[in-house]
Amino acid sequence: MGIVLGANQYGKAEVRLVHVDRSSPRHVLTDLNVSTHLRGRFEATYLAGDNASVLATDTQKNTVYAFARKYGVGSPEDFGLRLARHFVQSQPPVQGAQIEIDQLPWQRIEVGGQEHDHAFARPGGERRTTTVTVDGDQAWVVSGLTDLVVLKSTGSEFHGFPRDEYTTLPETTDRILATSVTARWRYASADLDFDAVYPEVRTLLLETFASVHSLALQQTLYAMGQAVLEKFAEVAEIRLSMPNKHHYLADLTPFDLDNPNEVFIAGDRPYGLIEGQVLREEAPDAGLAWEFVPGFI
Amino acid sequence: MGIVLGANQYGKAEVRLVHVDRSSPRHVLTDLNVSTHLRGRFEATYLAGDNASVLATDTQKNTVYAFARKYGVGSPEDFGLRLARHFVQSQPPVQGAQIEIDQLPWQRIEVGGQEHDHAFARPGGERRTTTVTVDGDQAWVVSGLTDLVVLKSTGSEFHGFPRDEYTTLPETTDRILATSVTARWRYASADLDFDAVYPEVRTLLLETFASVHSLALQQTLYAMGQAVLEKFAEVAEIRLSMPNKHHYLADLTPFDLDNPNEVFIAGDRPYGLIEGQVLREEAPDAGLAWEFVPGFI
Amino acid sequence: MGIVLGANQYGKAEVRLVHVDRSSPRHVLTDLNVSTHLRGRFEATYLAGDNASVLATDTQKNTVYAFARKYGVGSPEDFGLRLARHFVQSQPPVQGAQIEIDQLPWQRIEVGGQEHDHAFARPGGERRTTTVTVDGDQAWVVSGLTDLVVLKSTGSEFHGFPRDEYTTLPETTDRILATSVTARWRYASADLDFDAVYPEVRTLLLETFASVHSLALQQTLYAMGQAVLEKFAEVAEIRLSMPNKHHYLADLTPFDLDNPNEVFIAGDRPYGLIEGQVLREEAPDAGLAWEFVPGFI
Amino acid sequence: MGIVLGANQYGKAEVRLVHVDRSSPRHVLTDLNVSTHLRGRFEATYLAGDNASVLATDTQKNTVYAFARKYGVGSPEDFGLRLARHFVQSQPPVQGAQIEIDQLPWQRIEVGGQEHDHAFARPGGERRTTTVTVDGDQAWVVSGLTDLVVLKSTGSEFHGFPRDEYTTLPETTDRILATSVTARWRYASADLDFDAVYPEVRTLLLETFASVHSLALQQTLYAMGQAVLEKFAEVAEIRLSMPNKHHYLADLTPFDLDNPNEVFIAGDRPYGLIEGQVLREEAPDAGLAWEFVPGFI
Repeated sequence: MGIVLGANQYGKAEVRLVHVDRSSPRHVLTDLNVSTHLRGRFEATYLAGDNASVLATDTQKNTVYAFARKYGVGSPEDFGLRLARHFVQSQPPVQGAQIEIDQLPWQRIEVGGQEHDHAFARPGGERRTTTVTVDGDQAWVVSGLTDLVVLKSTGSEFHGFPRDEYTTLPETTDRILATSVTARWRYASADLDFDAVYPEVRTLLLETFASVHSLALQQTLYAMGQAVLEKFAEVAEIRLSMPNKHHYLADLTPFDLDNPNEVFIAGDRPYGLIEGQVLREEAPDAGLAWEFVPGFI
Repeated sequence: MGIVLGANQYGKAEVRLVHVDRSSPRHVLTDLNVSTHLRGRFEATYLAGDNASVLATDTQKNTVYAFARKYGVGSPEDFGLRLARHFVQSQPPVQGAQIEIDQLPWQRIEVGGQEHDHAFARPGGERRTTTVTVDGDQAWVVSGLTDLVVLKSTGSEFHGFPRDEYTTLPETTDRILATSVTARWRYASADLDFDAVYPEVRTLLLETFASVHSLALQQTLYAMGQAVLEKFAEVAEIRLSMPNKHHYLADLTPFDLDNPNEVFIAGDRPYGLIEGQVLREEAPDAGLAWEFVPGFI
Repeated sequence: MGIVLGANQYGKAEVRLVHVDRSSPRHVLTDLNVSTHLRGRFEATYLAGDNASVLATDTQKNTVYAFARKYGVGSPEDFGLRLARHFVQSQPPVQGAQIEIDQLPWQRIEVGGQEHDHAFARPGGERRTTTVTVDGDQAWVVSGLTDLVVLKSTGSEFHGFPRDEYTTLPETTDRILATSVTARWRYASADLDFDAVYPEVRTLLLETFASVHSLALQQTLYAMGQAVLEKFAEVAEIRLSMPNKHHYLADLTPFDLDNPNEVFIAGDRPYGLIEGQVLREEAPDAGLAWEFVPGFI
Repeated sequence: MGIVLGANQYGKAEVRLVHVDRSSPRHVLTDLNVSTHLRGRFEATYLAGDNASVLATDTQKNTVYAFARKYGVGSPEDFGLRLARHFVQSQPPVQGAQIEIDQLPWQRIEVGGQEHDHAFARPGGERRTTTVTVDGDQAWVVSGLTDLVVLKSTGSEFHGFPRDEYTTLPETTDRILATSVTARWRYASADLDFDAVYPEVRTLLLETFASVHSLALQQTLYAMGQAVLEKFAEVAEIRLSMPNKHHYLADLTPFDLDNPNEVFIAGDRPYGLIEGQVLREEAPDAGLAWEFVPGFI
């Protein structure tokens, strides 16, 4: 019949690791959601149920917790690289490993205006992400953020689009622009001070969203990506996925009321969805960096 | 048969209203999720499908948007009271109205260290809530917050509990204590500066969680409620629902590693759930304030 | 100050129990989500962190699993009664217990037209529920279902409602009626063949929804409740919560198309929400049956 | 700087379309969640906010509803192909279009043992999916299903896996095997009776899951894919993503109870995740069929 096994990977998804650095009374908290994916020569298990090469996903989970104690955590990128290299180097059938990590943010609670040593609150929503890929001796790092919800109450227009027989949308020179940013940027190197770069990229994305007068969400997306590439030489490319979270102007004319862009209906579905990649022409090849990266162009 | 209609209410749930106050270039953004519930003499529609007394839920929704333009929004409590009184006073069959409002928080984006005039980011998770109840001439206001996730990495013990034949939990003098606070407090009056009180109550809840050395989550819960009642004379009672979001110490002994409260497994389910009410003995009667308040003791 | 502890309860929420009855090769699968709530004399833990009376929530969880082995599961109602009575009878400080159980449905997979002995598929969504309350020697059982999503593509009208200044909704004699039913009915006794009654009540709810020509969702709700009370003497009352999941007729006139009730936009939010109670006048007193029952009028 | 726009697409996500075929009194209901993605020459909008080539996502949404009336819906694959070809053929800047569709299942309610003409209930969870891609004159169809939750209470083993220093998992010859299947299969043609093939593939996936004695979830996955390719010549390849939804045997030894595979703890996180592709060696090239397909290897 000529039926064969193609691409495949397996691992343990969503290992919830909370690490407390207690080396000083001012505890440092790291809260990660770690997923491991191993690739290699696993035909025997798929075709015959022979598990001799299959490092159990339970073992992968144990390794995450043990490594957190043995080596500490550090940046999610470095933690992921350490795990990926361990699996590839210690298990001969494993040729590649991809580690996805989401970091949940925590902020110190202030008591009487002072940050507390060991009490924290977690703002929901936004998370820092990384996907680290190791294949033999090579390594790639794609970092990013997701669920960063932002809105401009003015400074956004949309007009000049074509009108076919199904077009009813009026043009506007003033609308609410809101989105939930998912960004992933590929670093040119796997040896960087990731914790230093991350907050600066995040700030630049926010500042650019706020500052650009928008004629289209596409334009805002490109400007955000361009700003990051212009400022950070260590970033080879960036991909952005930005749903257009529509805010419809409420029609109050039946009630003899005007509505000068004051009262809006926040819609759930449908939403526009804009996805794009901004990259350096001279960027190093992406290799396997984006292989199987979930939920993104 | 003696079958009758008992308690009932109807309305429009989750009306998503975003209001932009553009009276100055520094826009003020209010983002609410409003649900209306009307009570009264509606037997005819239940028993015979006669809708002559049934103000359509679509009309209730329109009223929310129209009122936002006509009168502005202000505090969610005042907005809810205005809506509730309108329904009760303008529709004779409507004897009571309950308005639930969740407020979604937005923060100004900082650009170059300056807060932007019209660009905002929304931290997820936590929301301010209110439930306003009007019955004829009477009014009650229950305000609160939900999904405020907090954690202490030390300063929490749990021991001295009884051990029956099903008890295996070891005692501990140092554990992570984490919870997601839902608090609802009943104001003694419907005529207050709600926007002034709210952030102060929230701060006090956070500070008390952080400061109390905890021997049980119950003790922390009570201390939080007590602190609010002691400081705010305008609060008659408070109810708190606090899931114990367990963080299990990872057992690393199979790997010849100790674990001095450093590496934790964050559990999803099951979770402890502690719910309690703290009140003033001399508090005015609750009346209908808590009638049908969802998801809470 | 006169500040006191009011109502309170604590327990373990969402204990996920899967039980396999292997007494014959044709396995029987029971999949439950169990939450326990204990009430009693717990002031010492709230006020002073003294846990001498606090049966650990971990112990409550262990009890759920141990009881499933020791006594089997049976109906969720009987399982809940057994657990509740155990806590009340074995722990002197515990005066009352409430056990909430959701049952997740599984169906046998058919292979070659035959039901398989030990392979199952789980339809999502709908769940059977029960809330069992024990206080000293008394017991109450409230059972039901949730997330039962139903729709009628015709046989529903809505007109004759009042038109105030905010009313724009047109009247209609033919609309889609869709809802997600949550029903909870109180049994008159705690000693019944619950597994026999449940599917019959469920069927009757569905049949009534389908058969009643609806002039208002309120009317449909009442008819569903009335049908249950008329047929099942063991049911003392029933409460129904039915969101009106709006399906908006798409306006295709800009495209020179009519739309004779064929093409609809399924809306997410807002939705109407109709909640009502239907009861027997001569029903026994509800006692604590509904105390703290979540998310329902 | 050499910064350029790379891959990009835009469209309207999650257009909720409900279509009622009323051509006979026995209504036929089709409930779809449609997302459109357009690709082409859109540099001007990204770089300069020039929207002259940008068919508004609002127009794309209108087209979905208008086409449902104009041409009916039919199979989701054919509906997607019709939409994709329309966008590519009618809008010169649009070179390619990808339409994703999820179909929500509805079943007729039975009244007195008879299927009702216009009353339906919706089992949750599982959905039929399709992703249709058109590029110029070419077309690809990838269909599938998601959230099909299945479980075997026996007939599953796991042993023979390597034991490194982090391995603690015991071997087992009898365990619960549970997963939530996401399958996507690429058809060799875009001109098929998709509605006829779909239920047969689904049945075969279920039957194979049930029948295969499993030594590893990988083996089950491959057997499911192989069975489909062996039976359906029109399927060129299939990709399966199967989380291992762990059911942990409850340890009841502290309570002097054995547990002969009867009482299980259903875990939420972490979970194993097995993803693999099974394909025909002689299959036609995949072209753009899998480009940007979300959430899958």
